[in-house]
Amino acid sequence: MTKTAVLTVRRATEADLPAIVAMLADDPLGATRETPEDLTPYRTAFARIDGDPHQHLVVAERAGRTIGTLQLTLVPGLSRAGSTRAIIEAVRVHADGRGSGLGSELIRWAVERARELGADLVQLTSDATRTDAHRFYERLGFTPSHLGFKMTLRR
Amino acid sequence: MTKTAVLTVRRATEADLPAIVAMLADDPLGATRETPEDLTPYRTAFARIDGDPHQHLVVAERAGRTIGTLQLTLVPGLSRAGSTRAIIEAVRVHADGRGSGLGSELIRWAVERARELGADLVQLTSDATRTDAHRFYERLGFTPSHLGFKMTLRR
Repeated sequence: MTKTAVLTVRRATEADLPAIVAMLADDPLGATRETPEDLTPYRTAFARIDGDPHQHLVVAERAGRTIGTLQLTLVPGLSRAGSTRAIIEAVRVHADGRGSGLGSELIRWAVERARELGADLVQLTSDATRTDAHRFYERLGFTPSHLGFKMTLRR
Repeated sequence: MTKTAVLTVRRATEADLPAIVAMLADDPLGATRETPEDLTPYRTAFARIDGDPHQHLVVAERAGRTIGTLQLTLVPGLSRAGSTRAIIEAVRVHADGRGSGLGSELIRWAVERARELGADLVQLTSDATRTDAHRFYERLGFTPSHLGFKMTLRR
């Protein structure tokens, strides 16, 4: 397998859950937040995602291995003259694929898919501690114009 | 009309569009981005919002006047053990209602509604230039833990 092997991005199926959750958990922040030993809550969540036509959960494969994932959400809105936003969440690249340009390829795919789906803008938030990710998104053409606020209700 | 008049929050209808768009435009950033003189794109967007069960576009009324608006979006996801996020967008309070605690009341309503709808966390982004808004969201219990990145595809 070389770094130039073709990347395939496709819709995730329930069979991809173990690989996706393993990637979510293999991350400094995810390690404390995910439960890869119990997939039950992920199966419930997958059914919700899969049943919503505005959710696009995908996996990236290279040489037959699942090596990346992200979720694209289309949100219609009134502001900015009725703009539709595409929100990118839960971006992960397998440890074996980092530094190979795979992350850039995956985000560029997501931006192109957002455009095809009719989005007027693409947005995402990145934890303030992920400074490498911030440089990465700026290099890809994103502007760090906003502050992202969160409030946990449960868990 | 006093500041203690009861606030009613209800689902927006197409008849609310002129009042909502006027509030979106009456804002330092919105002034350059909205077209209140032509409601056509907003009517198209409203149909998309109204037809999506995960979108909750509301208006706040006090003493019979439309005095606030926001959009709540429910996004199912895999990360954080299958958490569902509620995203708050397009928050506006009419100039006549600012400084009266109406904004706080509206955001508290949205957080409560998000909880009822099954959300595990609530998130929003605020333009980096809106420093008053940042203090406002922190006072309401939100943590400014993220950077928000955007990329415009059109307009």
